[in-house]
Amino acid sequence: MQKFNPDEPFVTLVTPTAPIQPSTHGGRAKCLQRLVRLDLPVPRTVALSFGTVHDIANGEMPDLDQLLSQFQPVALLCVRPSSQDPDWGGPGAILNVGMNDASFVELSDKLGAEAAASIYQRFVQTYAIHVARLDPDVFEEIDAQGQQGLSDALMAYEEEAEEPFPQSPAVQLAEVLRSMARAWEGTSARLLRQAKGAPVDAGLGLVVQEMALGLGHGECGSGVLQLVNSDTGLPQITGRYLSQSQGREALAAGAKSLFLEQDDRGPSLQDLAPQAFEELKEHAALMRRRLRAEMQIEFTIENGRVHILDGVRVDRSARGNVRIVVRLVEDGIITRQEALMRVEPRALVELLHRQVDPDAVRDVIANGIAASPGAATGRIVFSAADAQASAARGEPCILVRRETSPEDVRGMHASVAVLTERGGMTSHAAVIGRGLGLPSVVGAACIRIHPKRAQIIARDGRVFQEGDIITVDGTNGEVLSGAPEMLEARLDDSFQTLMDWADAEGEIDIRANADTPADAAIARGFNAHGIGLCRTEHMFFDPGRLTVMQEMIFADAPEDRRAALDQLLPMQIADFTELFRIMHGQPVCIRLFDPPLHEFLPSDRAGLRDLAEALDLPVSDVTRRVQSMEEHNPMLGLRGVRLGLTVPEIYEMQVRAIFEATLTASKEGDPVVPEIMIPLVSAPREVEIVRTRIDAVAAAVRNEHGRDFDYRLGVMVETPRACLMADKIASSVDFLSFGTNDLTQMTYGLSRDDAGRFMSAYVNQSVYKEDPFHILDVDGVGELLTVGFERARAANPDVVMSICGEHGGNPESIAFCRGLGFNYVSCSPFRVPVARLAAAQEAIRLKIATS
Amino acid sequence: MQKFNPDEPFVTLVTPTAPIQPSTHGGRAKCLQRLVRLDLPVPRTVALSFGTVHDIANGEMPDLDQLLSQFQPVALLCVRPSSQDPDWGGPGAILNVGMNDASFVELSDKLGAEAAASIYQRFVQTYAIHVARLDPDVFEEIDAQGQQGLSDALMAYEEEAEEPFPQSPAVQLAEVLRSMARAWEGTSARLLRQAKGAPVDAGLGLVVQEMALGLGHGECGSGVLQLVNSDTGLPQITGRYLSQSQGREALAAGAKSLFLEQDDRGPSLQDLAPQAFEELKEHAALMRRRLRAEMQIEFTIENGRVHILDGVRVDRSARGNVRIVVRLVEDGIITRQEALMRVEPRALVELLHRQVDPDAVRDVIANGIAASPGAATGRIVFSAADAQASAARGEPCILVRRETSPEDVRGMHASVAVLTERGGMTSHAAVIGRGLGLPSVVGAACIRIHPKRAQIIARDGRVFQEGDIITVDGTNGEVLSGAPEMLEARLDDSFQTLMDWADAEGEIDIRANADTPADAAIARGFNAHGIGLCRTEHMFFDPGRLTVMQEMIFADAPEDRRAALDQLLPMQIADFTELFRIMHGQPVCIRLFDPPLHEFLPSDRAGLRDLAEALDLPVSDVTRRVQSMEEHNPMLGLRGVRLGLTVPEIYEMQVRAIFEATLTASKEGDPVVPEIMIPLVSAPREVEIVRTRIDAVAAAVRNEHGRDFDYRLGVMVETPRACLMADKIASSVDFLSFGTNDLTQMTYGLSRDDAGRFMSAYVNQSVYKEDPFHILDVDGVGELLTVGFERARAANPDVVMSICGEHGGNPESIAFCRGLGFNYVSCSPFRVPVARLAAAQEAIRLKIATS
Repeated sequence: MQKFNPDEPFVTLVTPTAPIQPSTHGGRAKCLQRLVRLDLPVPRTVALSFGTVHDIANGEMPDLDQLLSQFQPVALLCVRPSSQDPDWGGPGAILNVGMNDASFVELSDKLGAEAAASIYQRFVQTYAIHVARLDPDVFEEIDAQGQQGLSDALMAYEEEAEEPFPQSPAVQLAEVLRSMARAWEGTSARLLRQAKGAPVDAGLGLVVQEMALGLGHGECGSGVLQLVNSDTGLPQITGRYLSQSQGREALAAGAKSLFLEQDDRGPSLQDLAPQAFEELKEHAALMRRRLRAEMQIEFTIENGRVHILDGVRVDRSARGNVRIVVRLVEDGIITRQEALMRVEPRALVELLHRQVDPDAVRDVIANGIAASPGAATGRIVFSAADAQASAARGEPCILVRRETSPEDVRGMHASVAVLTERGGMTSHAAVIGRGLGLPSVVGAACIRIHPKRAQIIARDGRVFQEGDIITVDGTNGEVLSGAPEMLEARLDDSFQTLMDWADAEGEIDIRANADTPADAAIARGFNAHGIGLCRTEHMFFDPGRLTVMQEMIFADAPEDRRAALDQLLPMQIADFTELFRIMHGQPVCIRLFDPPLHEFLPSDRAGLRDLAEALDLPVSDVTRRVQSMEEHNPMLGLRGVRLGLTVPEIYEMQVRAIFEATLTASKEGDPVVPEIMIPLVSAPREVEIVRTRIDAVAAAVRNEHGRDFDYRLGVMVETPRACLMADKIASSVDFLSFGTNDLTQMTYGLSRDDAGRFMSAYVNQSVYKEDPFHILDVDGVGELLTVGFERARAANPDVVMSICGEHGGNPESIAFCRGLGFNYVSCSPFRVPVARLAAAQEAIRLKIATS
Repeated sequence: MQKFNPDEPFVTLVTPTAPIQPSTHGGRAKCLQRLVRLDLPVPRTVALSFGTVHDIANGEMPDLDQLLSQFQPVALLCVRPSSQDPDWGGPGAILNVGMNDASFVELSDKLGAEAAASIYQRFVQTYAIHVARLDPDVFEEIDAQGQQGLSDALMAYEEEAEEPFPQSPAVQLAEVLRSMARAWEGTSARLLRQAKGAPVDAGLGLVVQEMALGLGHGECGSGVLQLVNSDTGLPQITGRYLSQSQGREALAAGAKSLFLEQDDRGPSLQDLAPQAFEELKEHAALMRRRLRAEMQIEFTIENGRVHILDGVRVDRSARGNVRIVVRLVEDGIITRQEALMRVEPRALVELLHRQVDPDAVRDVIANGIAASPGAATGRIVFSAADAQASAARGEPCILVRRETSPEDVRGMHASVAVLTERGGMTSHAAVIGRGLGLPSVVGAACIRIHPKRAQIIARDGRVFQEGDIITVDGTNGEVLSGAPEMLEARLDDSFQTLMDWADAEGEIDIRANADTPADAAIARGFNAHGIGLCRTEHMFFDPGRLTVMQEMIFADAPEDRRAALDQLLPMQIADFTELFRIMHGQPVCIRLFDPPLHEFLPSDRAGLRDLAEALDLPVSDVTRRVQSMEEHNPMLGLRGVRLGLTVPEIYEMQVRAIFEATLTASKEGDPVVPEIMIPLVSAPREVEIVRTRIDAVAAAVRNEHGRDFDYRLGVMVETPRACLMADKIASSVDFLSFGTNDLTQMTYGLSRDDAGRFMSAYVNQSVYKEDPFHILDVDGVGELLTVGFERARAANPDVVMSICGEHGGNPESIAFCRGLGFNYVSCSPFRVPVARLAAAQEAIRLKIATS
C-alpha cells in the first residue's frame, strides 16, 4: 500500500493543476483532470487518494465537512471508484448521495414529486443493499413506483436497519465511502484483480462528483458516445442516449435508448437536441486529439446543457483496435511506436483465423484444449485416408482421432480442423495443427471416439456419426454441433500497415517453421525472414516413399540401405528445390532426419501383414523385427544424430539432395546457401563425425557437377548437455538453434505427449506457474538457454543463434531472446505476425528504457 | 617426449648413485639400480635414457665405443626395454649381442662347440627376424641344430640380406638399439600402450647388460622365483628353473622346467644347487623387505654362481593381491595406507562372487553385456512363475527373458542368474541383477529367445530347451553350455582386514541401495552405513497386493482409492518394520512410490481378461482404461511426485506405514528416524505440497498413538531442473539425494533402456568417452550436480547431500562426490566394498596431496 502522507490533503479538488496521478488517485481521477484541463463541462469533482481510502477502510474517517465544503451550495453527489488500472475493477458507483427528505422537497419543486420520489427511492434501495448491507430481497421486492415506492422503501429500511434512513448528507457520504473502501479490501475483490495482474497492494481512489441530474422539464437524459465502430474501428458515431435517465447504469439496464445521429429507424439525440449533439461530437473529437485515444464519453444533458461525467477508452475488437491505432497515427495524433505498443500481440491471432460469430448460438458437445486457434465446420472423418477422399470430393472434413501420429499428417492437410481425445498443447496434433494454421481441439477427454464404429459419443451422451457436421473452435477449445455463423479472418490494409511498422522497429529476425511448400508460402505471405526449421521426416510418409523407407529399415547391409535410399533421392531433391524456389534466396534451415525409425513401421496386424507381403518376408520375421525396434521412451531413444551416426546412409542421401537442389535452385535464381541442422546432439564429437561426412558429400557433389556452392552447418541444441557443451559445439559450426520443446521436456523430465494428463491440475494448483510447453520456463530452461548462449558466443563470436520450437513466437520468449542477443526466433507460420509485433514492442521497450 | 639434455651422458652405468629415474630411464633401469643398491649380484648394466633412445629412433646413433668401453673385457650383452610403466610393454629383449665367429670359437672352448653353436644360431635367427627384419619363415624353417644349424642360419642370412652376418659387436649393438627404438615408435605399439593409459609422448629407455650365460659344464641355467602363491597370496616358494638355458624366454617357451624347492614329484633346484637355492631365497626376502613388494626375481646360475638379472612385481589374482598387501603390512614393510592404495577397488568384485574357473573348458553359446558380475549354473526357465516353482523344488534356475519388467522381480529373487536378449548396463534386468548380486548377462542380441516354444536358439544355431543346464558368466558377459568348474567367492580374513582399514580412512559414508530385507541384510554384512535408497514399488507386485493395486488404479473416487490402499497398509507397515529391525537404528532412506501406474496393469489379452474378471467389469472397459493410461515416454510421464500430487492417497498410505513402523521398531530397539524421499521433483512447489500432507499424516499418527517420533524429509534430485532449483528446494528439506541414473538420462536425452542399441557403437567411435550410465559424465551431468550441490549448500548449510544410483559405487563418482563435499554415496549392496575402498583411496590421495 502506498504510504499515506499526513501532510497531503485528504481530498483534492480536480483542477487543471491539482497533484493527481494514476498512481496516487487512480485512472478515473486522472482522466477527469485531463477533461478539466480541456475545459470540458465537467461537474465539480474531488478525488480521494489511495491512502485516504485505505485509512477509511481501516476506520479512520476524515473530516467530511472539508469535503462537503467543496460543494456549496449543497448538491447531490455521486461516488465512483478510481483504481490505478480501470481493468482491475472496483465497487459500483453510487449516485445521488445527499438525497433526503429536505432535498426531496426541493427536487419536487424542480422536477415534480414523482420524478423526485423515483430518485430518492432508488438511492434508498442502493444505499440499503450496498452501503447498509441489508437483505437485498426485501428491497428488490418493492413493486410500487413514485411516492408510494419511496414510502415503502423508507419503511423497509427502518424495519431492516432498526433505525430511520439517515438524513445527514455527511453521514450518508461517510457510509458510502466506508462501504466502497471496504469492498475493495474484500478477499474476492482482491483475488479478482490479482488475476488481472494487479499487485497485492493495489490501491483504490474514489471520485466524488456533483450530480448532473439528467431529469427535468426540458431535454434531460444521459448517455455514452464514441466516434468509432468498436468492431471495425472505422469512423462512426455510436453510443446510446436515454431521456430522463441518470448515469451509465440506466443505459445498461436494458432500457430502450435512442439513436444518437439522425436515423430513419427512430428518434435520435440529434433530433431532440441538435446543439447538444454537435457539442458532444466536438468534445469527443477534442478528447481523441488531446487524450490521444478513441474515447467513449459519458454525458448528461440537463435542460439541453451538456455535462461530461467521464471518459474511458473505447471498448474494441482486436480488428477494431488495429484500425483505431493506425488511424490515430495517420491523423498525426500518436506515433507509430505508440500504435505498436497499443496492440497485444496475441490478439492478432484473432485476426488471422475465421471465428465463430460471437452472436451465434453455440451447441457445445465437447471441451478440450484450444490447441490451434480459429474455427472451421466440416463433416466428421475418422482416418487420414477418409480425410483425403473427402478433400478430393471437395467436402470440408474434420479429422477426428484418439491422437494423431506422423502417418496422419497428410490427412490433416486434407482437413479443415482436427479433434483428438488425447494429448496436450504440444502433442503431435497440436503442433502440426498450429503449423498448418488448422483449428485444433486436442485432449477432449470428455468425449469417446470409436473409430471402428465411426462414432463420437459426446459428453452428454449424444452420438455423432461419420459424415455428421460439427464445428471445431480452436480459439476457445470447444466443439460445436452443426455449422454456426462464422466471421471471416480479416487481414485488411491496417493490419499490413501495422506489420510494416513492426518490421521497421524489430531488432530480432522472425523466421517460420515450415515443412512443406504450403507452409513456406504462408511464411512468405507473412513476411517471415526465412525458414528457421524445416522438419524433413514428414517427407517420408508419402505412400510411395513409405514403402521404400520400410525397405531401407529392413535392409541389413549399408549397400542395401543405400540402394533403397537412392530411390528417394530424386524426390528429396524435388522437395528441397521447391522450398528454395518459394523462399527466393531467403535462408532455409533444414533439420536432418530426426524421428526413430519405428515410427515408419506398422504396429497393427494388418499393417504387419501388408509389410511382410511387400518385403516378401514371413510375417513372423517382420513382426519380430518390428518388435525388436520398439522403444520404451522413443523421445530419448535412437533418433536424431544417433540415427545419423548409426545409419549414416540417411543423412548422406539427405545432404546430397540438399546440395543438388541448391545447385538447381541457384541456377534459376538467387544463389541459395542452405543451412543444415543436426538434431539431438549431446556430445561435440557427434557433430565432428557428421560434419566430416557432410563435407565429403559436398566435395563429391561439387566434383560431379563441376560447380561450387556454399552451405552452413548447425546444431539443434535440445538436450541439457548440449547447452552445457555449447562452447565446444559452437566452435565448429555456423549456427546453433535451441529447440525449446525437447529442451523443456528434458529439463523437467516431462514428455509433452504425456503431460496433458496432469498439466492442468499442476497449473491450477500453481505447482508450475504456467504450462512450460506453452510459456517458456525462464527459471529452469531459460538458465540452460542462457548458459548455452553465453558459452557459444564466447567460443565463437560469429555463430548465429536462434530459438525454434513452440515457444519461438511467444512475446515472453522474444523478450528473453532479444535480451540475450539471439539472432532470430522461428515459429509456426501463423505465429509470425504475433512474433513480429512482439519483437517490435520489445525493441521499443528497450529504446524507452535506455533513452 | 622428454627433452633430451645434450649435457646428459647418453649412457649411464647402473651404480647405487647414478642419476636414474623411472621418468628418464624407465622402470626396469630403476629397479636394477635398486637391486644394485642392495648389493645383489647383478651383472654389469648400463641404461640408455628416453632421450637417447628417441634420438636413436630418429637416426642419431651415439658413439657406441663409449658404451662398449663399459664392458671390458668384451662380453656378450643383452638389451632389454625399460619403459616408465612396465604395463606399457615394449620390444622383446635381445640376448647374446656381440656373438660372432670369434666369440663362437672362444665359447666353444668354454662350453663345447654344440652349445656355442646353439647360442650363435639363436642369435642369428633373432637378429635376422627382429633386427634386420628379414622374412621370418626362412629362419623358422631351419630344422638343423648345433653346428649344422648355425651354418644354415648364417647362409640364410647372407642370402636374404645380401650381405654376410655382421661380425662387429658395435654394428650389431647399433642395429639392435635402432630396431628396438624404432619398434617403440611404431603405430601399433603406440596405440597398444595408449590403450593402457600411456601418454602420447611416453618414452622408452633401454638397458644393456652383460650376459650371464646359463650354459656351461657345472650347474648352469636360468629361472624365476617368488615367495608367494600368485593365486592365494599365501607364502609359498614358486617359480621355474631350467638347466642349461638362457633368460626368461627359455622358460616361457614351454620347455620342461624343474621345481625350485625339493619336491617328491621330481628333481628340483634345491637338489641340484642347494646353496644357490638358499642364496636366491635370501635375495628374494631382501628384495621383498627393501623394495617393499612381493617380487619375482629373474636369475641365472653359472656354475653354481647366482646372477640376478631383473626383478618384477609378482603377477597376482585379485584375491592374492589382497592377501599380499595385508601380509606386507603385518610384516611391518608397508603402511596400511599403502596397502589400501595397492588394491584396485573394482578388482574386489572378483572376490565377492563365484567365478568360472579360469582353467575350465568354456563352451560359449552367447555373448552379451556383462551386467552383474559372478557366475552361476542352473536350469533354463522362461517365466518368473517357473523360476519360483523351480526355487521351491530346490533346483537352481536361470531366468531367461527377452527383457525383464518389475513383474519379474520375484522371479529374479528365485533365480541364480539372469539372461536377457535386450537392454543395456542400466536396463531393468541389469539394475536389479546388480542389486541382488545376481550374475546377469543382458542384451545378448546374438541369441533368439522363444518363450512360447520354451527355447533359446544360440548364435551357432544350437537349440536349448527349458530345463537345460547353462551357466551365466556375468563377469565377462558370456553364457556357457553346461556346468563348468567354479571358484567360490573368497571373503577371507585379509579381505575383512583391508575393509576395516578402509573404513578408518574413508571420509565419505557409503550406504547401500536396498529394497528388500534380503538386500538390507547383505548391506549390513558389508558394513554399509545405512540404506541410501529403498525403492518401494516392488512391494506392490506381490500377487496378493497387485490385485489391490489394480483395484486402486481403477477406482474413480479418492474414498475408493483409499479403501483399496487401506488393505495394503498393514503389509507396508510390516515391510518397513522389518527393514528398520535389520538396520538396527542405522538410517533408512525410503523413496516414495515412483513408477507410472500402468506398470501394474496387464498388457496382454489374457491379463486383461483376468483383470476384468477380478474387477467385475466388461473386458472392453478394462482394455480401454488400460490403453488410456499408456504413455509415449513413461520415463517422462505421470510418475514420481506427479503421481504423489495427482493420486495423493498412495503417498498418504506409504508415509502412514512408515510412521507406524517407526513407532513399532523404536519400541523394540534403537529409536528410528526414517528418511522419506520424494522422487522426480522438478519444481519447489511440488515439495511444499507433499511436505504439508506428510506433516498432516505425522500429526495424525502422533495423535492416534499418543507418542512422538522424528522423521527427515528429502528430495531425489534427478531432473536437470531440480538441480537448477536446488537452492529453493533445499531450503525446506533435510536432505537431497541426487539420482544420477535419471539425471543422466535427461541430461543426455537418452533412455537407459533404449541406449543399449547403439551405446557400444558410440563408445567404440569415441562419440562418448564412456557409457555415461556406467561412468559418471563429469563434464555434463557433473556440472549439473555441482550446480545443484553448491546452490543447495549455500541456501541450507545443514542439508545432507548424497548420490544414489548406479554411479554411486564407482571410484570416479566417489572422487567426484568427495571433492564436492557430499555426505554419502549409496550403491548396490555388492558394490559397497568397492565403494568403501575407493573412498579410502580418495581420502588418502587428498592427504598426500595436501601434506
